[in-house]
Amino acid sequence: MPVNHRLLLMARPEGMPGPEHFTADAEAARSPREGEVLLATVYLSIDPAMRSWMSEGTSYQQHIPLGEVMRGGGIARVLESRAEGFVAGDWVQARLGWQTHPTIHARYLQKLDLGLGTVEDWIGPLGLSAVTAYFGLRDIGGLRPNDRVLVSAAAGGVGQIAVQIARFEGCRVAGIAGGAAKCAFVAGELGADAVIDYKAEPNLSAAIGRACPDGVDVYFDNVGGATLDAALEHLRHGARVVLCGRISQTHAAEPYGIRNLGRLAAARGRMQGFLVFNYHDRYDEARTWLAARRRDGSLRQRLHVLEGLTQAPIGLGMLFRGENAGKLVVRVKAV
Amino acid sequence: MPVNHRLLLMARPEGMPGPEHFTADAEAARSPREGEVLLATVYLSIDPAMRSWMSEGTSYQQHIPLGEVMRGGGIARVLESRAEGFVAGDWVQARLGWQTHPTIHARYLQKLDLGLGTVEDWIGPLGLSAVTAYFGLRDIGGLRPNDRVLVSAAAGGVGQIAVQIARFEGCRVAGIAGGAAKCAFVAGELGADAVIDYKAEPNLSAAIGRACPDGVDVYFDNVGGATLDAALEHLRHGARVVLCGRISQTHAAEPYGIRNLGRLAAARGRMQGFLVFNYHDRYDEARTWLAARRRDGSLRQRLHVLEGLTQAPIGLGMLFRGENAGKLVVRVKAV
Repeated sequence: MPVNHRLLLMARPEGMPGPEHFTADAEAARSPREGEVLLATVYLSIDPAMRSWMSEGTSYQQHIPLGEVMRGGGIARVLESRAEGFVAGDWVQARLGWQTHPTIHARYLQKLDLGLGTVEDWIGPLGLSAVTAYFGLRDIGGLRPNDRVLVSAAAGGVGQIAVQIARFEGCRVAGIAGGAAKCAFVAGELGADAVIDYKAEPNLSAAIGRACPDGVDVYFDNVGGATLDAALEHLRHGARVVLCGRISQTHAAEPYGIRNLGRLAAARGRMQGFLVFNYHDRYDEARTWLAARRRDGSLRQRLHVLEGLTQAPIGLGMLFRGENAGKLVVRVKAV
Repeated sequence: MPVNHRLLLMARPEGMPGPEHFTADAEAARSPREGEVLLATVYLSIDPAMRSWMSEGTSYQQHIPLGEVMRGGGIARVLESRAEGFVAGDWVQARLGWQTHPTIHARYLQKLDLGLGTVEDWIGPLGLSAVTAYFGLRDIGGLRPNDRVLVSAAAGGVGQIAVQIARFEGCRVAGIAGGAAKCAFVAGELGADAVIDYKAEPNLSAAIGRACPDGVDVYFDNVGGATLDAALEHLRHGARVVLCGRISQTHAAEPYGIRNLGRLAAARGRMQGFLVFNYHDRYDEARTWLAARRRDGSLRQRLHVLEGLTQAPIGLGMLFRGENAGKLVVRVKAV
């Protein structure tokens, strides 16, 4: 049997997560029982939501018990199968956890349809971040052609797809990102009509006003806090605010106080949170839509790839410091 | 011609509105031209939204120019008609303004159907405050049987109807009001399952937790600020927050900072503002529903009646100091 290298959560972070909260161990991989498969992890997705699973407290999921394998989704290849419908060599995605050789029941696996896209597409523009952007913008945001759309964390895993979906749907799109390189990517590669470097703007609200001179119909919020507050000042009548992420608040010393909710009320706007898992039975719809635009070359995706399982905790810290350039993944095994 | 007594807006209030911002004058009423009617004002409705019309700044309506008649809705009787479909003696509602004898084009009038309810019903449980509660709770709040509903300013013009609609629809209802008398009204007359006296509670969130031990599916917000923030802590999964009013913020020295928006996101909740005028083509639906419950005696309404046009500015101040007991109206002419 191969050796299963694992990263176990050993301490609950107060602030930024990092290697100090994990310990590595290794054990022989477990042979699959009836209905199970043995997998080789190829990619792990590094996502902001993972931070909340590390702490006790309010999350949409149970927190991870100390001493257990860190939870995380990714893509793997089947090494050995005792489950109907799966054979060695199949590509699957699942909650693999931070380990190189998980053994998992087939009911928790989704086989990748490589007719829709490559393995890298499945971690990127067909992955859960992209599907999140799709449902957030269309179902929660009620996207309509000619909407003025504003996306924060526009260079990130969800944001970069949201910018492009809005553009494909005939909207005017402005993106907020941190630093010249990310802003160049959002304007150049993703084709945003306007871009705001929040790190270079002393007055974010004024900058949004310049980037969105006619106001905002849909604000896709990955950031929360002061960015959300500034965006509220520019809502148009009937605006929709999509609460997707709030990465600015994860490590805030205390919660930011939103002062401009009156603007939401005055605009008769709507603000709504959601979870991509609620759309589970419509993932195929999103992936078919995204794959078509991937095939014709219009949908771009920038992956920021870290090499090796031990990079995963470092990646989590990078994510919250905004040091990633694109959708952050760890490649556990070369493909 | 009768004398038209008027109250003109003469100064824009910095804080609380009151008689010092108005001046009274009198002139001969204007004879109606073709298409117009001459009216005798009977009731004027005193509503929080009127305060925003007095100031320059963001409102859903143009502010009132200085020197002009104060804007306000109410009920009147036709004295003389040169409009088809209206005859002397008809009852109508309209944006009458703060004046005793307006002359108005018939296109701006709605005739009261006294088969649906009395004149007092039309200023109360069939009036715009009641219709606001109806659409806010049902369309914006997406009210469903067995929802746990929380209503702030529960003794007020909109709140008292919202409490009862929720109860009629088979929901569990908690109301927030200020002072023992209002709370007794909300629990006793309106039949709320629980009531919170915010003036007597050192910790509003804890009090909401006791009044709504299973959390809140629909929060009907007439108050904004700290009350809204406290309510957010108790949202259930899929909760809806109806942004109807924000009376606590109208005269706040600076806007309150909402810290618990993360709870809305975590609950995958929705928060939405609205304006009753957007439902103009469905007012009949609301009034038919309300009238049926008024006729069978189940729908209660407490009117707080001030006597005489000169009381209108005083009433506006009372409203913002929470001194009214029920829906606040001015009776301009005895009926």
